Amino acid sequence: MGTEDKKTSSLCRLTVIFFIGFVIGWCARPTINHGDASKSFLHDFLDEMQAENIKHHLRKFTRLPHLAGSQQNLDLAKQIRDEWMEFGLDSVELVPYDVLLSYPNKTNPNYISIVDHLGTEIFNTSLAEPVPEGYEDVTDIVPPYSAFSAKGQPEDELVYVNYGRTEDFFKLERELGINCSGKIVIARYGKIFRGNKVKNAMLAGAKGIVLFSDPADYCADGVEPYPDGWNLPGGGAQRGNVLNLNGAGDPLTPGYPAKEYTYRSSLEDAVGLPKIPVHPIGYHDAVHLLQHMGGPHPPDNWKGSLNISYRIGPGFTDGLNQNKVRMNIHTNNQVTRIYNVIGWIRGAVEPDRYVILGGHRDAWVFGGIDPVSGAAVVHENVRAAGKLMKKGWRPRRTLIFASWDAEEFGLLGSTEWAEDHARVLQERAVAYINADSAIEGMYTLRVDCTPSLHTLVYDITKKVSSPEEGEEGMTLYQSWHKRDNSTERDAPWISKLGSGSDFEAYFIRLGIASGRARYTKNRKTERYSSYPVYHSVYETYEIVERFYDPSFRRLEAVARVRGGLIFSLADSPVLPLDCVEYAMSLTKYANSIYQLALKHPAAMQQHSVSFDSLFFAVENFTVVARDFHQRLDQLDTSNALAVRMVNDQLMYLERAFTDPLGLPGRPFYRHIIFAPSSHNKYAGESFPGIYDALFDIENAVDWQKAWDEVKRQISIAAFTVNAAAETLKPVVS
Amino acid sequence: MGTEDKKTSSLCRLTVIFFIGFVIGWCARPTINHGDASKSFLHDFLDEMQAENIKHHLRKFTRLPHLAGSQQNLDLAKQIRDEWMEFGLDSVELVPYDVLLSYPNKTNPNYISIVDHLGTEIFNTSLAEPVPEGYEDVTDIVPPYSAFSAKGQPEDELVYVNYGRTEDFFKLERELGINCSGKIVIARYGKIFRGNKVKNAMLAGAKGIVLFSDPADYCADGVEPYPDGWNLPGGGAQRGNVLNLNGAGDPLTPGYPAKEYTYRSSLEDAVGLPKIPVHPIGYHDAVHLLQHMGGPHPPDNWKGSLNISYRIGPGFTDGLNQNKVRMNIHTNNQVTRIYNVIGWIRGAVEPDRYVILGGHRDAWVFGGIDPVSGAAVVHENVRAAGKLMKKGWRPRRTLIFASWDAEEFGLLGSTEWAEDHARVLQERAVAYINADSAIEGMYTLRVDCTPSLHTLVYDITKKVSSPEEGEEGMTLYQSWHKRDNSTERDAPWISKLGSGSDFEAYFIRLGIASGRARYTKNRKTERYSSYPVYHSVYETYEIVERFYDPSFRRLEAVARVRGGLIFSLADSPVLPLDCVEYAMSLTKYANSIYQLALKHPAAMQQHSVSFDSLFFAVENFTVVARDFHQRLDQLDTSNALAVRMVNDQLMYLERAFTDPLGLPGRPFYRHIIFAPSSHNKYAGESFPGIYDALFDIENAVDWQKAWDEVKRQISIAAFTVNAAAETLKPVVS
Repeated sequence: MGTEDKKTSSLCRLTVIFFIGFVIGWCARPTINHGDASKSFLHDFLDEMQAENIKHHLRKFTRLPHLAGSQQNLDLAKQIRDEWMEFGLDSVELVPYDVLLSYPNKTNPNYISIVDHLGTEIFNTSLAEPVPEGYEDVTDIVPPYSAFSAKGQPEDELVYVNYGRTEDFFKLERELGINCSGKIVIARYGKIFRGNKVKNAMLAGAKGIVLFSDPADYCADGVEPYPDGWNLPGGGAQRGNVLNLNGAGDPLTPGYPAKEYTYRSSLEDAVGLPKIPVHPIGYHDAVHLLQHMGGPHPPDNWKGSLNISYRIGPGFTDGLNQNKVRMNIHTNNQVTRIYNVIGWIRGAVEPDRYVILGGHRDAWVFGGIDPVSGAAVVHENVRAAGKLMKKGWRPRRTLIFASWDAEEFGLLGSTEWAEDHARVLQERAVAYINADSAIEGMYTLRVDCTPSLHTLVYDITKKVSSPEEGEEGMTLYQSWHKRDNSTERDAPWISKLGSGSDFEAYFIRLGIASGRARYTKNRKTERYSSYPVYHSVYETYEIVERFYDPSFRRLEAVARVRGGLIFSLADSPVLPLDCVEYAMSLTKYANSIYQLALKHPAAMQQHSVSFDSLFFAVENFTVVARDFHQRLDQLDTSNALAVRMVNDQLMYLERAFTDPLGLPGRPFYRHIIFAPSSHNKYAGESFPGIYDALFDIENAVDWQKAWDEVKRQISIAAFTVNAAAETLKPVVS
Repeated sequence: MGTEDKKTSSLCRLTVIFFIGFVIGWCARPTINHGDASKSFLHDFLDEMQAENIKHHLRKFTRLPHLAGSQQNLDLAKQIRDEWMEFGLDSVELVPYDVLLSYPNKTNPNYISIVDHLGTEIFNTSLAEPVPEGYEDVTDIVPPYSAFSAKGQPEDELVYVNYGRTEDFFKLERELGINCSGKIVIARYGKIFRGNKVKNAMLAGAKGIVLFSDPADYCADGVEPYPDGWNLPGGGAQRGNVLNLNGAGDPLTPGYPAKEYTYRSSLEDAVGLPKIPVHPIGYHDAVHLLQHMGGPHPPDNWKGSLNISYRIGPGFTDGLNQNKVRMNIHTNNQVTRIYNVIGWIRGAVEPDRYVILGGHRDAWVFGGIDPVSGAAVVHENVRAAGKLMKKGWRPRRTLIFASWDAEEFGLLGSTEWAEDHARVLQERAVAYINADSAIEGMYTLRVDCTPSLHTLVYDITKKVSSPEEGEEGMTLYQSWHKRDNSTERDAPWISKLGSGSDFEAYFIRLGIASGRARYTKNRKTERYSSYPVYHSVYETYEIVERFYDPSFRRLEAVARVRGGLIFSLADSPVLPLDCVEYAMSLTKYANSIYQLALKHPAAMQQHSVSFDSLFFAVENFTVVARDFHQRLDQLDTSNALAVRMVNDQLMYLERAFTDPLGLPGRPFYRHIIFAPSSHNKYAGESFPGIYDALFDIENAVDWQKAWDEVKRQISIAAFTVNAAAETLKPVVS
């Protein structure tokens, strides 16, 4: 080897050494989490959640009633706090609020009577449900009541109003010529949120409303009443609040958290309290009230299935005597302390980005299904996350776990916390996954979520096994797809979010991408409402263990879906949100609201109503969303700020659909694309501003004004969609 | 050297080479801009702005009238767009909106008459101002008028209402027993925004209002009228809009940008339009109206300085005849296209963070002071930024320059753009610096800004030289400090933001940290209102060049202050916002509002009104702000995400003080700490919700309700301050 060669060789060696140094130096610099490592953690996380554990949590949390505001529910909060700490969360806190709750008067029970012409009560409804076997010694079972009912003892004729829906009252007033003003009305449960029934009754001038569970709505065919099956027994009745809060949270502190120092309005100025007495009864009691009714026959589709020929009022005139109905309601409103449990796992890379999993803890009685089937799943999610942390994992973003209180009293715990932390949530929350009841049927998965989560939901369900017997080797996605295909494409059916659970403030008010998943019945064949024992004393551990999910594999599947969602949202370097899916949904909603308007072709022409601006906006959004995802494919994921920037665009997209001015008359419903229906809080309405402006427009007093409002709402919707599109464009003009 | 030594030496060498490679590798990785390099760029930037250039821009932009909606103002927009592109901005666009403007009827002029008992007009006010020398050939000088005045020809007695302030009408009604209902009132300009005078007149039931400039308010002592001095000539009058928009922007599209497809309300439903005729006159004309008035003598401090013994109405009874006053107003409201010019410099590191410099371009006539003294300064700011870019500089964050249209018609251009881009601004805007008139006096600097900008303002003014003769070597800070020391500490006086210029939507509605700076008069000794020729035809180039700033060094100083602010905000790695200053201001405001409430000790006690929650909240904020800045001192500025995180906290702090529910009755005023006074749009009020609840509370109809509202507002303020504090806490609980 000559000197030159030596030199060259030496130079080569030095170059190599330099290069090695360079590479190590390059790599030693902190860089963003690519998430490759996390992929295996996702599998670990999903596998960690086990049916047996969920069964154990469910059993443990359903031994006692956990009514909001009760000592038991505080004890349970502390237990959950302690266990979450043991599981390994970074911190867990109890967060109290003092909100308006409502309880029956213990010494002066609520009931409904038939009174004769002398004023004698000749029939009284039951004061409580027969307690299920094994729970005879349990105290503090609150009897069926309508929370926030007005007090009072109105006495009058009883008018049957079917489900008490807007269309039912329209039919009564406009077709049947029956006036409910000054009467007591009786409505069957089902189809819509009970608070809407009460509101409709008040609007019709009723002075009280009785709510009953009809077997047609609360019994499945061929199923026995509990405990031999999972149907509602005749002595069972549905508890529930009858508020019309429209997202306000605590009725005394709308818009602000109910802290000690917070100003509270008077009860007269409170939001959403019914002004009339309300009371729920079971079908055994309902028979007695209904069989004595006179008046014309009800329409066939109003008859229900009580197997008696009850008839519509007016006139509590059964021929022989002048009996009336009397309501005896002594329920008290009471400012009461409630407790949310909030647990944190600090994000490793972006601690200021929050992914929230929240579900309520309070139950009307044992809450076997509502909410503990959900709370047990949250508990397993937390346990699994803690387990992973012990293996060295920490999510890229911060995870927040919430056990909400007082959901049953109007989503109070979750709404107060949202109000309390609105500013940081608006700045930092990536997504909110709701965890109410995890099961309400035995058929397949049900998912309601914002469109941008569709793709992630499909992805996650492909990583989870079907829990159904005989479907070994099948994914949950396949099982779900087979059982409930979308009408629009070859994929499982996903619905939009309505309300009636704790995601409301997060999604509808704050504009945080939200979703929920649970196991459900076959929505095409099983026609009963909700699930039969809903909000009764028969929601026990045993009803789940014996009927709904004996293997607990359905709850395990739900746990994995919910867990997989929060894991991916918290840990993926680029947020797994799909704007093109949002565009597709907007297109569908725009077409649908346009079709609704087209039912008034003459008026549309006369008032020059055009949906062009909305269709242009949706098209604009579609193009921009597609371009955004194309740019995303080119993203340099090693550039931490570039990744943060597109993630901010993804995170804030849902926010962009909100408008601080809110919907007309509903200032806390700020989402312009989605709101709970004005006629049924449970259902989601798309383009709710336009929908409500069009509703019953043919009967508007001032047509010009009514159609002007339609045009205004189209303009607002079009602008909002364009504005949301702008957030996805390149950040500099 | 032994083999061992050789090996060691070789190892050493390799280690060194490796180390060099490592270091180069380390350094080759992209890292955040530490801003050290930028410090010299700041000096370059400040030095680049020169008096001569500003003089040149001012001359160029003041040759013709530039009324909003006119062809000249569109031409000017295009000229500015083209020059900004030449200066080197990345992009410049014209952004149109179609908003409601208001112009006099060209064929049917507005004037005020004295009519005798036969209905003959025995005196008419002038139809126009005498045009200043050199401008005789200019067409399209709009005569003095009150934009958005109602049309009409009311005829009645004239009642003098002093400044037309709330307290003036209280005095008339409560002390003097004078009823304005059904009368025409005449108010002198000054003290408060003219729109508030008109609102007060309407509330008092007046059927028209005449506004006049009194020499007491529009002439400085010892100064000649223009062109011999800078006082208002007797034939000059003040144009201006008389809206009460409360931040709504275009009256027909409140809350939404006035695009082609936007729904427009009817004129009847428009926001803020006066329902009565309004017209402005100069003091030569005013004398004629006032000298004929009868009735009791006015209070001494109402007399003004017209040097005639005019008297208050009622009764246009000068003894000899029954003359009346007739208003002849034919002004038209008209939807008109306006154009903002928006220029961009893309940020190098964080393009999705925006720093905005905006000022209006439209003028009532030539706009020598308002706004072109400001627009010329913006032009110089843009030129200097372009120059720096040619030297290789690019700011860390995106810079946006705006030339707003139709500010004079209710801040329309800036508000529509804010409405149009509310979502991205809310997500991305770091700060808004306003650039209206850069000079209104010859004494010293005047700054109004959000408290978090105090420190930066002081820092920048220390880098700028005093423009005053005889102050060579003195900084602007020193000159300013010497002339206008704060009453609270040893530093120059900085005031809070009110309204009346284009920052309103950005600060009060969107919660973007904002500030403004201009040269001003001596506020302690110069008692005239605004500057004498304000909104008259006498606002020419020459008035600036001859009187206000012959060397153009004052405008240069203002240019450097505004420029230095946007430079630092756009380029500093850590945002130069000071939360501790905010805490200090909050403390001051809380004390001040508490003192106001203490004027009602008995009521405070009776209604159990406590400010404790507010004081606790301010104390909480103070501690948290201090801790935040302590953590900031420890920040690892090489961690791009960590820097972004604290910057987000700093950026969103101002946002945290806003509440989507807005102030009572003023939905677009959302800032809970600052709002324009309900009695004078120009003035800023701190804790405006509490202030308004307390206002005139001793005369409230229902004391219980009134004090409940005070308590509610205290609670909202306390919560908002606590919520803002939360945003500065560590991001994980």
